[in-house]
Amino acid sequence: MTDAATTETDAVLAANLEFYRAFGTCDYPAMNALWARSAPVQCIHPGWPAIMGREPVMRSWRNLLTSPEPTRVACHDDQAILYEDFALVICEEELSAGNLVATNMFVKEDGRWRMVQHQASPLIGRAQPPRPPQRRRSDRR
Amino acid sequence: MTDAATTETDAVLAANLEFYRAFGTCDYPAMNALWARSAPVQCIHPGWPAIMGREPVMRSWRNLLTSPEPTRVACHDDQAILYEDFALVICEEELSAGNLVATNMFVKEDGRWRMVQHQASPLIGRAQPPRPPQRRRSDRR
Repeated sequence: MTDAATTETDAVLAANLEFYRAFGTCDYPAMNALWARSAPVQCIHPGWPAIMGREPVMRSWRNLLTSPEPTRVACHDDQAILYEDFALVICEEELSAGNLVATNMFVKEDGRWRMVQHQASPLIGRAQPPRPPQRRRSDRR
Repeated sequence: MTDAATTETDAVLAANLEFYRAFGTCDYPAMNALWARSAPVQCIHPGWPAIMGREPVMRSWRNLLTSPEPTRVACHDDQAILYEDFALVICEEELSAGNLVATNMFVKEDGRWRMVQHQASPLIGRAQPPRPPQRRRSDRR
């Protein structure tokens, strides 16, 4: 991997961790800042139909992040996949309700990786493997 | 929408319908032809962890399409979202086991939209709305 690709990989993984930090700490302004302004955005929360467009997507996050019972979420096994003008991070999410597999999609806007889509799907019939603390990427912050 | 955007929207929706045609008719060669050759590919079947890379992804499709009990699948409510160099189709899938929401991601290779990712997530607690036959896009072929 070239130095430039390493830097981009690090940058998109950092954006992904920022998503989980904002999610886990109920930081709506940070969540709002993370999502793209110009590019179309969509979100598929687990079990929900797709939410299309920035305003409804951010309304869903505002509702989730101001819920009286905030979601505890940890992200691990995050892998970045870089394409020419966009990037994906595929990772697993640990929530109290169960484990999910998520795809987070990013495009560059104003030189920053911004989120254009989040889709999280339940993992079925998967024993939760023991993981050493250093593999929990969201614990690094 | 410009004529060029309409054409690209039609082209990516056609690629998406070809995916469901290949899936529903167990046409592995067509499924194999649809997935990107150069760009990285991933697949998240419902309930499964992510499968990374073309060879394991196509192996999973070969197994699914040669299963003794083929999957009956219909796609509806397909919406294309065009970005600069890639496109998404978000749609709902009707399977005998239940309804799913899927994101299918495409990039252009050799002038054709080819699939780079498929993720399908179960829809929970959603009554199946009545739909007129003409809205079932995969029935058009």
